[in-house]
This record gives sequence, structure tokens and C-alpha cells, in this order.
Amino acid sequence: MRTESRKDVLARLRSVAGHLKAVERMVEEDTYCVDVLKQTLAVEKALERIDAMILEEHLETCVADAFRQGKSERTVKELAEIFATARK
Amino acid sequence: MRTESRKDVLARLRSVAGHLKAVERMVEEDTYCVDVLKQTLAVEKALERIDAMILEEHLETCVADAFRQGKSERTVKELAEIFATARK
Amino acid sequence: MRTESRKDVLARLRSVAGHLKAVERMVEEDTYCVDVLKQTLAVEKALERIDAMILEEHLETCVADAFRQGKSERTVKELAEIFATARK
Amino acid sequence: MRTESRKDVLARLRSVAGHLKAVERMVEEDTYCVDVLKQTLAVEKALERIDAMILEEHLETCVADAFRQGKSERTVKELAEIFATARK
Repeated sequence: MRTESRKDVLARLRSVAGHLKAVERMVEEDTYCVDVLKQTLAVEKALERIDAMILEEHLETCVADAFRQGKSERTVKELAEIFATARK
Repeated sequence: MRTESRKDVLARLRSVAGHLKAVERMVEEDTYCVDVLKQTLAVEKALERIDAMILEEHLETCVADAFRQGKSERTVKELAEIFATARK
Repeated sequence: MRTESRKDVLARLRSVAGHLKAVERMVEEDTYCVDVLKQTLAVEKALERIDAMILEEHLETCVADAFRQGKSERTVKELAEIFATARK
Repeated sequence: MRTESRKDVLARLRSVAGHLKAVERMVEEDTYCVDVLKQTLAVEKALERIDAMILEEHLETCVADAFRQGKSERTVKELAEIFATARK
């Protein structure tokens, strides 16, 4: 990843870690299940936004290089795999 | 799409259309909601497999061409968009 | 399902079938992969809205009855299963 | 949540937090994007399993109580909302 994107991804991962810590506390304090669920779902959405950023970075750097160098076979397979895993 | 893939995608789309027709009949006959839901979810999974096939075809043809011709900007944007839409 | 909901679900299923038919034509005419993908994803979203309607109907009728009659064990298992399948 | 389930959910949340910490390190060490993505996707799957546990607990306790007491309107709305949010 390029330096700017890496910094951005790291800041978001740390924010997600903080959010997750707050969810732990909610469970310890026996908060209403539905309120806990709303928060775990929000954490998942935040992680999905991070995935999207990493993927875009990947497309603009590694994927672009691989296609330019005619070594795209592995790249295509990896992208197809990620797409499939992300939807499961 | 290449001819082989197009044929395969078409066959699967027609099979999904048949499946969907069967779901209509289930609803007309007032089948138990949970059994209907299981079938609509199965139709969605079948469509997701079709998406995966189209995407792989896209990566191996259009995307490969775009990167080789140095015209990848639109391609990267489109892939990022599809990834985001698919996960929503 | 209650009559009103059943009519609504049927109308939506038929609309999805029409949409799917249009996607078939797009593939036959060799439309750009990304434009096809956007349509298959739209069909999936439409199906997901139908799922949501069926589920809400199920909760308000069958699930309510099951709990009132103290026969909720199967119902809970079914709901948990549908939730898990829907997210896969 | 009942004590056993709460303990189980907490243990899993802590394990996810550890996994997320490892992903941070991968990004700091500039690991290949695809390998990072595989891990963030795995974290999301682990969170989805936690959602499923909390939902099942919710169905067996709060939802059961609400229906038995004839106060199911809010409960149905909440379940429909969670289902919709989880699929977005």
C-alpha cells in the first residue's frame, strides 16, 4: 500500500478496535441484545469500508503492475476469490 | 463476454428464471413462509454465482485489455463500485 | 401469508421475473459485462426486499402464533437458520 | 443474555480483538494487500458468527417473553430492522 493509504487504513483499524472494545463493555454490562447487535453490525460496516479502501489501493497499484507486466493470471484469480469470499 | 461464457451465463439465467417461476407458484399456493424464503435465498445464491462468472470473464477480457492499453482508470473505478454494490 | 401481503409479494416476484428477462436479452446482445452485473445486482436487491417482506409477514403471523401457543422451539431454530443463510 | 451465552460472546469478542490487532501489524509491516484483505474478511465472518449467537439468545429469551406477554409489536419491528441492516 502507498504510505497515505496505509496511514488511513491503520487509523480506521484502530478506530474499529476502539469500537469493538466498547461492544465488549456493553456485553459485560448486559446491555439489551438488540443494542449490542446494532453495534456489532456497525463494526462490520466499518470493516467493509476498510476492505473497499484496501481493494481500491490494490487495484491501482499491484493489479495495474501485474497487468502491465503481463503477469495477470494470479491477480485475476485472487480478485475473483476475494469477491466470492466477501459475498459469502 | 466470450461465446462459451455467454452461453453458460445464459443457461444459468434461464434456470434461475424457472426457479423464480416455481417460487411464484409456491406463493400462489400459500406455502409456509419459511419454505418460500429458503427458495428466494437459493435464487439469490444462484444469481451470485452468475455475478462471479461475469466478473471473472470481465477480469480476463475487458480489464486485461484496459490495463494493457494503459486505460485502467475507469476500469478500477468500475470494479471498486461493483465490489461496494455487491456487499450492500 | 395474509392476502394483501401475498398479492404484494406476487406482484414483486413478477416484476423481478421481467427484470431477469431483460438481463437475459442484455447477455444475448453481448452488453458490456459491467452493465450486466449492475442489473443482476439490482435483481438481487429486489429479491432481498421481497425476503424482508416475507420475513416481516412471518414474524407477525406464524411466529406470533407459535410463541402464543408455547411452541416456539422450531420457530426460533428456523429464524436463526434463515438469518445465517441470508448472510452467507 | 444468559450468563453462559454472555461468557461465550465475550470470549469471542476478545478473540476478534486479538485478530484485529494482528491485522494492524500486517498493515504496519506493509503485507501484500490480498493477504490483509483475507484477514479482514475473516474478522468479519467471526463477527457474523457472534451476531448469530446474540440473535439466537435474543430469540430464546427477550423475543419469547415479549410474545408471551402480548407485547410483540416492538420486537417484530426490531427483528425486521436487524435483518435488513445485516444484509446491507
